[in-house]
Amino acid sequence: MIELATLDRHFDGMPPVAAMHIRAIAFDGDALVLHAPLSANVNDKQCAFGGSLASVMTLAGWGWLMLAADRAGLTSEVYVADSKIGYLAPLYEDLHARAWLRPGQDWTAIIRTLAERRRASATMQAEVRNSAGVVAATLEARFAMKRVEPTP
Amino acid sequence: MIELATLDRHFDGMPPVAAMHIRAIAFDGDALVLHAPLSANVNDKQCAFGGSLASVMTLAGWGWLMLAADRAGLTSEVYVADSKIGYLAPLYEDLHARAWLRPGQDWTAIIRTLAERRRASATMQAEVRNSAGVVAATLEARFAMKRVEPTP
Repeated sequence: MIELATLDRHFDGMPPVAAMHIRAIAFDGDALVLHAPLSANVNDKQCAFGGSLASVMTLAGWGWLMLAADRAGLTSEVYVADSKIGYLAPLYEDLHARAWLRPGQDWTAIIRTLAERRRASATMQAEVRNSAGVVAATLEARFAMKRVEPTP
Repeated sequence: MIELATLDRHFDGMPPVAAMHIRAIAFDGDALVLHAPLSANVNDKQCAFGGSLASVMTLAGWGWLMLAADRAGLTSEVYVADSKIGYLAPLYEDLHARAWLRPGQDWTAIIRTLAERRRASATMQAEVRNSAGVVAATLEARFAMKRVEPTP
C-alpha cells in the first residue's frame, strides 16, 4: 500500500523535486496536502517562485491519483497531460498545496475504466492558500493513468 | 543593459531555479532560448520532470520580456499571471525552451502602454522540442509588466 512516506520517496528520487523539499503531510481520501518550505522555493522578490507553485500543485494532483488508485487496489502510473494555472497573489510563507478530484467527476467510473481498459483520465484541481486563507495560486490539470502490474 | 548573463544571475539568485541549472543561451530579438540539463531535471521515469518543463518555459517567457523591455529603454518587473501548459511527449535529453511574443500582439503598443501607464500585459508562447524536432511541451502565459525606475 502506498503511504505518504512512499510519495516522499518518489519526490526525493527526482532531483528537481528533492531540491524543493516537498513533503506529503495529509490525505483524508478527499484531499491531499503537500508542504514545501519557502526558503527552498523563493524567487528574487522574496516570495514563492511560480515554477515551485506549479510543481507543488501538479505533484499534489499526481500524488492524489497515485494514493487513491492504490486504495482502490490498482497499481498505476500517472502522467500530467495538460494544466491551467492562475497566479493570484504573492506568497511570502511556506507552500501548502491542496489537491482534490474536480467536482462532477465519478471516481468509481474512473477506477472501473482503469481496471477494464488499463487506461483512464482524471482531472484534478489544486490550490495554494496562505495562512490567512488568501488563494495564492490555482491549478486545474488533466492526468493520464496507466494500470501496471504491481512489482512483487 | 540586460545581457544574457544578467538573466543567469537572476536564475542563480532563486534557489529552486539554481537547482535546475537554467542558463540563457540565445536571444535574437524574436526568441529567447534557455537550457537546463536533464540530470538536474529528471523525474522517476528518467525523463524531464513536468515542473521543470513548466519552469523553464515560464522563465523563457519572463526573460524575453525582461530583455525586450530593456532594449526598448524601460526597466521593468515582470510577473506571470496565468498559463496553459501541454505535456505532449516525454523528453529524454536536455531541456531547450524557446519563447516568443504570441503572434498578433503589437510589441510597440505594449511598450508604449508600459511607458505611459507604467503597467502593461503581454502574452508569451514557449515550447520545448527534442533534438529531432518533436515538441515535448508547450506553454502560453500572460505576464503583467510594471515599469520601475532603474537602480543607479
